[in-house]
Amino acid sequence: MCIKRLGSATVSLSSPPVITAAAAIGGKKEGQGPLRDCFDRIIDDAYCGCQTWEQAESALLRQAFDLCCGKAQLSAAALDYLFAGDLLAQCVSSSFALRDVPAPCFGLYGACSTIIEGLSLAAMAIDGGYADHCAAMTSSHFCSAERQFRLPLEYGGQRSPVTQWTVTGAAALILSAQGTGPAVTYITTGRIVDAGIKDAGNMGAAMAPAACETLTAHFHDTGRRPADYDAIITGDLGRVGHGILMDLCKREGLDLGKNCTDCGILIFDPREQDVHAGGSGCGCCASVLAGYIVPNIISGKWKRVLVAATGALLSPTTALQGESIPGICHAVALEGR
Amino acid sequence: MCIKRLGSATVSLSSPPVITAAAAIGGKKEGQGPLRDCFDRIIDDAYCGCQTWEQAESALLRQAFDLCCGKAQLSAAALDYLFAGDLLAQCVSSSFALRDVPAPCFGLYGACSTIIEGLSLAAMAIDGGYADHCAAMTSSHFCSAERQFRLPLEYGGQRSPVTQWTVTGAAALILSAQGTGPAVTYITTGRIVDAGIKDAGNMGAAMAPAACETLTAHFHDTGRRPADYDAIITGDLGRVGHGILMDLCKREGLDLGKNCTDCGILIFDPREQDVHAGGSGCGCCASVLAGYIVPNIISGKWKRVLVAATGALLSPTTALQGESIPGICHAVALEGR
Repeated sequence: MCIKRLGSATVSLSSPPVITAAAAIGGKKEGQGPLRDCFDRIIDDAYCGCQTWEQAESALLRQAFDLCCGKAQLSAAALDYLFAGDLLAQCVSSSFALRDVPAPCFGLYGACSTIIEGLSLAAMAIDGGYADHCAAMTSSHFCSAERQFRLPLEYGGQRSPVTQWTVTGAAALILSAQGTGPAVTYITTGRIVDAGIKDAGNMGAAMAPAACETLTAHFHDTGRRPADYDAIITGDLGRVGHGILMDLCKREGLDLGKNCTDCGILIFDPREQDVHAGGSGCGCCASVLAGYIVPNIISGKWKRVLVAATGALLSPTTALQGESIPGICHAVALEGR
Repeated sequence: MCIKRLGSATVSLSSPPVITAAAAIGGKKEGQGPLRDCFDRIIDDAYCGCQTWEQAESALLRQAFDLCCGKAQLSAAALDYLFAGDLLAQCVSSSFALRDVPAPCFGLYGACSTIIEGLSLAAMAIDGGYADHCAAMTSSHFCSAERQFRLPLEYGGQRSPVTQWTVTGAAALILSAQGTGPAVTYITTGRIVDAGIKDAGNMGAAMAPAACETLTAHFHDTGRRPADYDAIITGDLGRVGHGILMDLCKREGLDLGKNCTDCGILIFDPREQDVHAGGSGCGCCASVLAGYIVPNIISGKWKRVLVAATGALLSPTTALQGESIPGICHAVALEGR
C-alpha cells in the first residue's frame, strides 16, 4: 500500500497545503441569520441583477471566486487548477461562472459535498506536486434548486417539517503549497451509501448514513478520537439528519460528543427563520466553511476541525421514477499552525 | 513552479501509472458499427432488462465496471478511488451504478470529456502516492440523453445534419501504479471555452474551440509535435466538429496531420448508419478508448497516442433560456512500453 494511505478511505498529506484565502457570499435570508457577519457580501436581490435564477447563482459564484482571488492577491491565471461544481443540472452555475477564466478546470458533482470533494482533490494535486495554487468553489440558490428538485415556487407548496432550506450562497477557497492559514492534514473520501430513503423532502435522512460511514472510517483510519477535534462539523444534515447521525454513530460505538454540529444548523436561527430542519445546498457547507470555520481556525479559537460535507445524490427524474436517494460524505481535517 | 508542471495546462507523471484493464459495453447500434468487435459485450435491449432508460444506462455502467475489475483480477474493495460521472442530471447513472461498491468515490461532471477527466485525476492520485489502484468510468444512453437534452423520443423530431448520435455504451478503466499496459505520461487539462454556439443540436461546433485550445496547450507545454504521436484522437467532435478543429488549429499554426481522428467518427459508419455527424456522449470516447485505443497500444500497433476528450457543458434549462454552450477538453498522452 502506498505510503500516504492510512486505511481504506483516508490519506495523509506529507506537506499539508494551506487555505490561504476564502470568500463567502450569501443571499438575503442568510444575511439575516446567525452567521450574517461571516459573509464577505450579502446580496438582497434574488436575481442578483440577472434575468434568471440560474444566472444569479452563477453570478454569486463568480463574485465569490473573484473576491477570493483578490484576497489571495493572485490572478485567476496563476491558479493551476479549479475544482468546481454545483447542484444545477449539468453544473451550469460553475460552467458559466468560469467560462472566461484562464485556468484548467475539473468539473465535479458531489451535491452538497462538493466543496470538500474539491478541497480534497485540490489538496492532493498540490501535495502531489502538480500544482502550487488551486481553487475549490461551489454555489446554490434557493430558487433555482427548489424548482429543479421539487416544485415550481409559484405553486407555493406546503413544506414538510423535515425539509431543509436551500441556501442562496457561494464560496471559494484558495489552497496553496506555501502560505499561512488552516492546513489540510487528512482526507477521508466517502463511498456512495444508499439507505433506501425515497422522500426528496428529507435529505437529512438520506445523507446521515453516509456521514456515519465516513466519520467512522476517519476515526478508524487515523486512530484519532472525536475529542481530538475542537469541532466536528457536518454539512448539511440539518437538525433531522444530525439527530440521525448521532444515533447511527452511537450504534457504531462512536460518540461524536458535544463538539459535533452541522452547517445546516449553524446558518439559520430556527426561532426567527422559517427554515424547518435547517439549511442545505452546496452553498451552505461552502459558505460556513469559508466564512465561519476557516476564520475561527485562523483566530486560534479552534486548533483542529473535522469538516464532513454530505451530499444527497438526488435527481428529479429518478425520484419521480420511485428510486431511492443515495448519499455521500467527504471529510477533511483542518489544522491551525 | 512545482516540478511536475510543464506549463499552464500540462503536468508530467514521474512514475507513469498504467491502464491495467479496460472494458467496454455497447448498445445495438454500436454493435453494428465498425468497432463492433471492440466491445466486450453488446446489449441489444435498450432497456437492458430494466424498467427505465436511466436504470438501463446505470446497468451498462455497472456491467462495464464489474467486467473491468474481473479483467484486472481486483475486487472493488481493492480500488483506492473511483472517478465516475455521466450526462444525466445529477450524474445518477454513476451514483446508482456504484451505490453498493465499497470504495471511495469522486463524482465528476465533464460531459463527454468525463473519461479523460477521470483518468487524469486517477493518474495524479496514483503518481502522487495516494492510491495503488483507481477506476475511471462513464456511460451514456441514446434514449436517456436525447429526452433529457433535446426532445421526447416519441415526438420523432427531424434531426439536423450537424447533430450527433448519442452512443449507448459504458466503459471502465483500471489504472494502477504497477503492471503492464499503456502508461499515462502527460495530462493536459482544459479550461472552459465558450465560443457562443447556442444550437443544442450542434455539439461539434460548441466543443471544437476547447479542443483546439487544449491541443495547442499540450504541444506548447510538452515541446512535442503532432508527428510525435501515432494517433491523435479527439472525442467526440464528430465529422462537423472535427473539420472545425482542423481549421482552428491551422489558424494557430498547428497542423494535426493525417493521424488525427475522432471517436465520434470511428464508432459509426456514415454510409451504413444514419447518425448524421457521428457519435457523441460520454460512452463514445470512453468505449472507443477502452475497446479500441488501449488494445491498439497493447498490440504495438501504436506506440504513442494523444487522447483529447471534449465535453459540451449543455443544460436543457439554460439552453431554453437562450444561453450559449461552453465546451471543455481534457487530454492525456498514452504510451506503450
